[in-house]
Amino acid sequence: MSSIDVPVALLGYGTVGAAVHRLLVESAEDIERATGHRLRVVRALVRDPAKERGFAPEDDVLTTDPREILDSPDAAVVAEVMGGVEPAGDYVLELLRAGKHVVSANKQLVARRGAELFAAASERGVQLRFEASVCAAIPVIKVLREALVVSNVHRVLGIVNGTTNYVLGGMADGQAYGEALAEAQRLGYAEADPSDDVTGADAAAKMAILAGVAFGGRVALEAVRADGIEHLDPGVFRAARALDMRVKLIGEATLVDGRYDVRVGPALVDSHHPLAAVEGAYNAVMLQGDAIREITLEGPGAGGSETASAVVADMVSIVGTTGTGFLQNDPAWRVLEPLDPGDHATPAYVRVEVEDRAGVLATIAHVLAERDVSIARLVQQPIGDAAVLHVVTHRARWDDLHGAADRLTELAETRGPALVLPVVSDRGVAELGWA
Amino acid sequence: MSSIDVPVALLGYGTVGAAVHRLLVESAEDIERATGHRLRVVRALVRDPAKERGFAPEDDVLTTDPREILDSPDAAVVAEVMGGVEPAGDYVLELLRAGKHVVSANKQLVARRGAELFAAASERGVQLRFEASVCAAIPVIKVLREALVVSNVHRVLGIVNGTTNYVLGGMADGQAYGEALAEAQRLGYAEADPSDDVTGADAAAKMAILAGVAFGGRVALEAVRADGIEHLDPGVFRAARALDMRVKLIGEATLVDGRYDVRVGPALVDSHHPLAAVEGAYNAVMLQGDAIREITLEGPGAGGSETASAVVADMVSIVGTTGTGFLQNDPAWRVLEPLDPGDHATPAYVRVEVEDRAGVLATIAHVLAERDVSIARLVQQPIGDAAVLHVVTHRARWDDLHGAADRLTELAETRGPALVLPVVSDRGVAELGWA
Repeated sequence: MSSIDVPVALLGYGTVGAAVHRLLVESAEDIERATGHRLRVVRALVRDPAKERGFAPEDDVLTTDPREILDSPDAAVVAEVMGGVEPAGDYVLELLRAGKHVVSANKQLVARRGAELFAAASERGVQLRFEASVCAAIPVIKVLREALVVSNVHRVLGIVNGTTNYVLGGMADGQAYGEALAEAQRLGYAEADPSDDVTGADAAAKMAILAGVAFGGRVALEAVRADGIEHLDPGVFRAARALDMRVKLIGEATLVDGRYDVRVGPALVDSHHPLAAVEGAYNAVMLQGDAIREITLEGPGAGGSETASAVVADMVSIVGTTGTGFLQNDPAWRVLEPLDPGDHATPAYVRVEVEDRAGVLATIAHVLAERDVSIARLVQQPIGDAAVLHVVTHRARWDDLHGAADRLTELAETRGPALVLPVVSDRGVAELGWA
Repeated sequence: MSSIDVPVALLGYGTVGAAVHRLLVESAEDIERATGHRLRVVRALVRDPAKERGFAPEDDVLTTDPREILDSPDAAVVAEVMGGVEPAGDYVLELLRAGKHVVSANKQLVARRGAELFAAASERGVQLRFEASVCAAIPVIKVLREALVVSNVHRVLGIVNGTTNYVLGGMADGQAYGEALAEAQRLGYAEADPSDDVTGADAAAKMAILAGVAFGGRVALEAVRADGIEHLDPGVFRAARALDMRVKLIGEATLVDGRYDVRVGPALVDSHHPLAAVEGAYNAVMLQGDAIREITLEGPGAGGSETASAVVADMVSIVGTTGTGFLQNDPAWRVLEPLDPGDHATPAYVRVEVEDRAGVLATIAHVLAERDVSIARLVQQPIGDAAVLHVVTHRARWDDLHGAADRLTELAETRGPALVLPVVSDRGVAELGWA
């Protein structure tokens, strides 16, 4: 089989860009064997061509002028590994309109300008692939679009931010939030400014992309509710341990009667759930669908070579499918409306501090029952002259859970505000023998 | 985009065949949207066309004559879902030689006749896909061949048999082997004759396929060492609990200096390892490679609709890549020799019962040290006038471990034979703070 030459250009040549180049060089034979194509980097856009680089390209490859890539007829595939929404977005749009296939590792770009970019790609019959934009080398997008094409995936659960997973692991071991975060920064798992991670913003962008692909409709980033881990009460970790659960920052996307709900926030995960076992800075995504029950993918969700591996795999998939009509379309093929966030149903953990006297429990149970919140499990812990009630509920509406919590907070018999967190439990709480 | 008609034939119309037909009908629009192709079943080979069927095809689809499929120019893609090595193998070979793409769900066929079948496919430039032959809907083959094409996967660890994982779970909870197996049979996780599962033969075939794809060379089924779970000592579960490990039937494939080692057997898995958390009848496969560190895929490894989902996904991938050269080749592109099984290196668990008197520990330690087996962790438990030593070793050669165990068994100070089981521990035993 004679091999086809595929000139490739890179927008950006930082850690990821250099790793992409390295993989293309070192794996050229593997790629040629698998696809019959030979990919080679002909141009890479950089800010400073004189900068010392780990895997330096040949002299004539680096350029500081984007027009040398945007106007060049050479490159058949361009990888956008520069980051940032602008000017990356305008470059990608121009390239797609010019009939180039594009691979992007940029979650903010795909989450924010996806509609426009995919429309441009579809119009020209070229591909925009974006595996690396979500969880680096974990091939969730490929699995969703190709392996699960007939599975009607209706729920996506994910630990899609390694920084917060690492910090939560430290807090579960007794570290204070600041201490665990400082350690994550020392180890390179967290940025100097960790806001995007700890507020849930990073996870929200990834979940918007995953939900859009899984459900086949665009998910507006603004429709994703994101709670972070900055204000998480250390007592939650003790409660989780007592309930045989783990505290995780969970992204949850569900499709209910044609409406989507996508949210990110701290949750209690049953220790038997596959996501409970995800440790350190790892990521994992569970896909639930009709034909497959559920499939979970786990691995490092960040890293230069991991991200580059996904970028190169996307390039390989492009050359392996060009001209067939396969995936040369927008993954969002229908218009989906968001679900009213209050209608989202979930089992939950409710914590409330109460006076330790007769009749209090009946009052609490009554408040919950009034909102159709039914109790799956209850643990009472004495603290001084009071008690803390830890309640795990069956599936209930989000608004009902919060309505009940507000009412509990107002009661004379309770102290301080009641807390509500979602519970993630594969098989439903009752089936675990808790009823 | 006008859609391309793709007539499909099925060899076999049992649970999986009917589920394939159902998915093709119910997901026809999803497939057309993704690929521009419309797949429809035109022929299905059955033994008894009069049999009552769950998702019955139209009248003229079923046939009892294989020639109606083998000689027909109609079908572009044929799915082999009949099982058994013969006559399925001869049918598949004939179809590939006639220029048909084939999808097979048949692990024994792919493991035993793969070389011949892939050679025929390569010669005609058609595809033989086989995702469903390993772990049903868990897309390990696609991920290995497409997403990890540049990752140099050098180790595959798997729980690839759900029956034994279920039984081991029961035994960990205190059930006897026969009791746990009977329960698995009652729930449909184990066949009436469970030999293929409990002896490790089923897992061995799957590991041979996975190793072949991961390492790019044919792995002879005869070269796969398989130990089962039938003779597992219940004491191992108590020891595992004490060491914070789980007992699992682990398939392990490693590529060391261009030589492969593939084996299946009971092992102790550190509780922090992703495979430790795989419960019930689920399967999971961990892929370790250069660029990706490790990626783990988990899900149900069996089931009619799960298997059918993988078969249909393979069909979709075929129509999405035809004519591009992509994966129209044998995944085994080089000749690999097996490693001498005794040279395989692994951390291990060694158990030996000893007289409870001074100097015994020194003797044991000396025997291990003589074989270059170094101790990572040691727990001594008294039983009556004797003691049991539970030793977790650092990485050592398999032959050295067994040589040491044989020597321990011969000692006057020990009672009964010493036991050796491999230990699976992601980060190495020492790094877990055990040294």
